[in-house]
Amino acid sequence: MALDSRPIGVFDSGVGGLTVLRSLADHFPQEQFIYVGDTARVPYGNKSAETIHRYTEEVLQFLSKKDVKAFVIACNSASANFLQPNYEGRPVYNVIEPGCDEAVAHTKNLIIGVLGTRATIQSSAYNTRLKTRNEMIEVQSVACPLFVPLAEEGWIDDPVTNLVAYRYLQNLKARNVDTVILGCTHYPLLRASIQRAFGTTVHLVDSGRALSQQLAHDMQEGILGASEFQKSQIQLFSTDQSPLFLSMANYVLSPLHFLEPELLKL
Amino acid sequence: MALDSRPIGVFDSGVGGLTVLRSLADHFPQEQFIYVGDTARVPYGNKSAETIHRYTEEVLQFLSKKDVKAFVIACNSASANFLQPNYEGRPVYNVIEPGCDEAVAHTKNLIIGVLGTRATIQSSAYNTRLKTRNEMIEVQSVACPLFVPLAEEGWIDDPVTNLVAYRYLQNLKARNVDTVILGCTHYPLLRASIQRAFGTTVHLVDSGRALSQQLAHDMQEGILGASEFQKSQIQLFSTDQSPLFLSMANYVLSPLHFLEPELLKL
Repeated sequence: MALDSRPIGVFDSGVGGLTVLRSLADHFPQEQFIYVGDTARVPYGNKSAETIHRYTEEVLQFLSKKDVKAFVIACNSASANFLQPNYEGRPVYNVIEPGCDEAVAHTKNLIIGVLGTRATIQSSAYNTRLKTRNEMIEVQSVACPLFVPLAEEGWIDDPVTNLVAYRYLQNLKARNVDTVILGCTHYPLLRASIQRAFGTTVHLVDSGRALSQQLAHDMQEGILGASEFQKSQIQLFSTDQSPLFLSMANYVLSPLHFLEPELLKL
Repeated sequence: MALDSRPIGVFDSGVGGLTVLRSLADHFPQEQFIYVGDTARVPYGNKSAETIHRYTEEVLQFLSKKDVKAFVIACNSASANFLQPNYEGRPVYNVIEPGCDEAVAHTKNLIIGVLGTRATIQSSAYNTRLKTRNEMIEVQSVACPLFVPLAEEGWIDDPVTNLVAYRYLQNLKARNVDTVILGCTHYPLLRASIQRAFGTTVHLVDSGRALSQQLAHDMQEGILGASEFQKSQIQLFSTDQSPLFLSMANYVLSPLHFLEPELLKL
């Protein structure tokens, strides 16, 4: 197995991808990670495909100059508009493919729901990828633009959030979905309200966790993988200087050690 | 009175400022206007003061190269972090000052409420400017981050919006505010829910409309003012190509004529 000591680049439009970084860092304590949160231009979910693609490529360019061995796009809106498997000769992991794999493995009645931002739903990325796996699958999608601001406001498992979840999801429930992809890294924070709207028999797929599991698999297979003697390191960049980024990083990554976040002007 | 045929530059982080543009274009049909909506980086309301200042200056730079005779910042988050009266020798109008003037003229008990984004409230811009006018004024502020996404979702005068408004505003109401500044150009869209939360005796100040009135006054005084024979023109730029921008422009500006919106890459 070839060892590759270069870091892994993880990218999200904001702070949601920190949960993916945490999961990777827990699995692979000998790896080095560089995380970029594009907090100055967050959210991507209401923007056009062209703008999201341009912003994503700007971040991958930065990571490329940092000589990463792989790119991890831990953001559904960016993944949906940057679905290529490689960039500058290095693998690009996204949240769409592993989320689809898990959903297809779970569904019994072949009716799968997809929740996401406007950009993710409009891209039809999940729809296309699910039907590639099994053309008999029926996909029911709904954009839930208020979920991200509700999660960022901290109104978790809150009466307002329950009401919004019921409003967004009642049609999907009526169509008998048995598996639902949480197609945005913020949505697992609202899992309780979403699960309540569907009832306990519906299986929820966390796309970020599915991505972590796929990466873990590839690393164990030797596709990636660093020396076991390498010192781990987590380096954070954000494009805005908001104190929220540091407090979220502390919350999500603690007790892992990470370097003082740096400002990246894009 | 000196005539100045150069255009007026109007800037907002997104589409909210189109209502200010409309009001100006109605008042001054002989003027030329250039509007920039920074839709690729919207919203500003959750970003740091430094980033908002940088983005605002980038847009003013662009407008400056277009040789505008005045800058109108029709966005509270940008105004709050760019409060200088001039830029490159030309006047800068913002939404903070005229909103404060109207609130001070209306309040009887000197207890004024301010609603805004996190960035606007954290800047204390309204607080400082209100106390400059009368140090006896008591200012009660509250950040309402969910109001913009609710307005953009079109949930106007909706049970969810009523519930959110009640949650945000009940403490302000208990403190007996008699005048409340809607310190974000999106908030007038939610006026019905906000008025219901406070009751009809509280006076709501629309900061965008107050700005239009101030500008109208200055133009009549000859501080600005173009030749009456000049052909009016409205030119729109947005930093994202979303179809939402054009549909909002049609909705807000119709039946005024405007040129096909152009993409501005910042």
